Amino acid sequence: MLESKFKFEVLKTQGKARRATMTLNHGAVQTPMFMPVGTYGCVKAMLPSDLKEVGSQVILGNTFHLWLRPGTEVIEKHGGLHGFMNWDQPILTDSGGFQVFSLSDLRSKIYEEGVKFSSPIDGAKLFLTPEESMRIQKSLNSDIVMVFDECTPYLIKDRPATHEEAAKSMRMSLRWAKRSKTAFEELRNPNALFGIVQGGMYDDLRIESLHGLKEIGFHGYAIGGLSVGEPKEEMNRIIEFLAHQLPEDAPRYLMGVGTPEDLVYGVAHGIDMFDCVMPTRNARNGTLFTRYGDLKIRNARYKDDMRPVDPSLPPNTSSKFSRAYLHHLQKTNEISGSRLNTIHNLMFYLHIMKEMREAIELGSFTEWVAKFHEDRARGIE
Amino acid sequence: MLESKFKFEVLKTQGKARRATMTLNHGAVQTPMFMPVGTYGCVKAMLPSDLKEVGSQVILGNTFHLWLRPGTEVIEKHGGLHGFMNWDQPILTDSGGFQVFSLSDLRSKIYEEGVKFSSPIDGAKLFLTPEESMRIQKSLNSDIVMVFDECTPYLIKDRPATHEEAAKSMRMSLRWAKRSKTAFEELRNPNALFGIVQGGMYDDLRIESLHGLKEIGFHGYAIGGLSVGEPKEEMNRIIEFLAHQLPEDAPRYLMGVGTPEDLVYGVAHGIDMFDCVMPTRNARNGTLFTRYGDLKIRNARYKDDMRPVDPSLPPNTSSKFSRAYLHHLQKTNEISGSRLNTIHNLMFYLHIMKEMREAIELGSFTEWVAKFHEDRARGIE
Repeated sequence: MLESKFKFEVLKTQGKARRATMTLNHGAVQTPMFMPVGTYGCVKAMLPSDLKEVGSQVILGNTFHLWLRPGTEVIEKHGGLHGFMNWDQPILTDSGGFQVFSLSDLRSKIYEEGVKFSSPIDGAKLFLTPEESMRIQKSLNSDIVMVFDECTPYLIKDRPATHEEAAKSMRMSLRWAKRSKTAFEELRNPNALFGIVQGGMYDDLRIESLHGLKEIGFHGYAIGGLSVGEPKEEMNRIIEFLAHQLPEDAPRYLMGVGTPEDLVYGVAHGIDMFDCVMPTRNARNGTLFTRYGDLKIRNARYKDDMRPVDPSLPPNTSSKFSRAYLHHLQKTNEISGSRLNTIHNLMFYLHIMKEMREAIELGSFTEWVAKFHEDRARGIE
Repeated sequence: MLESKFKFEVLKTQGKARRATMTLNHGAVQTPMFMPVGTYGCVKAMLPSDLKEVGSQVILGNTFHLWLRPGTEVIEKHGGLHGFMNWDQPILTDSGGFQVFSLSDLRSKIYEEGVKFSSPIDGAKLFLTPEESMRIQKSLNSDIVMVFDECTPYLIKDRPATHEEAAKSMRMSLRWAKRSKTAFEELRNPNALFGIVQGGMYDDLRIESLHGLKEIGFHGYAIGGLSVGEPKEEMNRIIEFLAHQLPEDAPRYLMGVGTPEDLVYGVAHGIDMFDCVMPTRNARNGTLFTRYGDLKIRNARYKDDMRPVDPSLPPNTSSKFSRAYLHHLQKTNEISGSRLNTIHNLMFYLHIMKEMREAIELGSFTEWVAKFHEDRARGIE
């Protein structure tokens, strides 16, 4: 690979939990961390200044969406996604694979070469391959590029994927991972490339996938194919079994997960990076995460509640307003309600990540986790 | 009336145009000025910090909407509308009259005592009177309270209101203005109360209304019943005829107007204050006002346009982004697009008001107006 600024340094561990620093082309970031999702080159309802206020370090962009709109040509004209959206800190992009397989109306068809599908915008026939995904992500100039793979669904024809189906899918993903790496290098991409462990709910397949990826060699390793409809116990079992087996000297990224409890579980098992639409999407629907449980701001009990959403959080743009005001904005469908709710939820997510980083540094992570679960179970007043 | 901080001081005039300072309970403001509309205690897509960035001095709240949601009790608990929405500068509220008469589904019925109508939220029978409007506006603690009146519609049964209809309506408004003042004083409201000149398109009725209001005595005088469907020439004729006849030592407010050209026309004829939903509403639909004409950001020509919307405006949050990015956000229905567009449009409106204030101070207002029309007619590239 090209020489890159990429560096990953574990500073401290407690049990399996790790406190590390990852250096990317747009700066160094502190892990464990959560990455807000900005599908279309914009974290919904947020501007870069809001993202900085809540403590975002890396944000995520969706290659599939950006490829279709506005297209790589427009983004290249801005020198990449950073310039287009005015974000000067690191960006991670997924490969587009997940959307191509999971969006139901694309009528996608999988070949060894790649995936054919119909554009959801104009019906045009499109073809996405590992090489094309690498080309797009190079245009975006993402600090972290993800390999193009097939995310094995939990259910196939309404029953869990069989071992044979999961194996076939995972082995194709391995071949695509190899092609992704080759293309990444041929493009002389100076950023970091992460592999993705697949294999569904089968331990042996997960291990086979991991070994295959390690043989190819990546800057970091992700766990894919979780939070795709499986029972929570299945997800947790895979994380417990797999996370700590990922290379110790590379970042570990749990894709598309999850609730505040999921983040804590992941960190406790050695995960360094997370992303999920939950804090941003739920904010727009009026579900607010707090230290003491979740709060539906539309509920009439908040109609005249003068308190900020979560008095335990550090002061921020959202905490200047009462629950009564946020309730009112939600009831009247004001755009600013979505914004204040999103600021709150991201603030909460990023704040618990910060607390976990500090707890690992101090060696008090176990106590922190116990207190966190106790607080969350208490319920919000 | 109670002793109030209210003060209005004309600093400079050029022709009929005036440069003045108005002191209200939440601070002094510079006129001529434009007031963004925050119907539900929130200027759509804006937070107070955005409003300050673009140079808002006074914002407007709608008494009718706030009365129904969240209701005066909730707002009183926050010490008034300022505390509820976290805005520490002056607020003007309308009287609720305009909505009661203009919203078609309220089945409103007018009596000498007030207006009966059905709540658009739950169908409940409601009764709005001058006294009730004064009570609500006292709860909101608006710096400028507007009298409760009937805004004579331009069309009645699809033809312009007759002289008799307009006279009857205006004379009832005068009686309601008197009752408004009495109630305002009985409530010991320490803020400012403005009267509203009605009389439709009839000069003699406008003068009768103005004399009646002056006899009652108000802190300021508004022109109502314009921009309600009449031809632009009719509106301009009334402004030209009437504005300079309003008391010289009090602020003159042209309600619900208008386009950038309307603001310039109003200032040239002696108006000090404006409000309109146009810059905020059009922003959300993707129509952006610029020095060189209006720009529909959805237009494909902006797909890869690297320039800010209006390079002639001072740098602001919106001008950090390219037209291509704003085009993309509009096409993908991102909330942040509405926000950036609204920041731009308000910035433009408030910037031309600032330029007019400076031009009047310098005695170069006539030249400024000529250049403004020349620039606007040039068309945006």
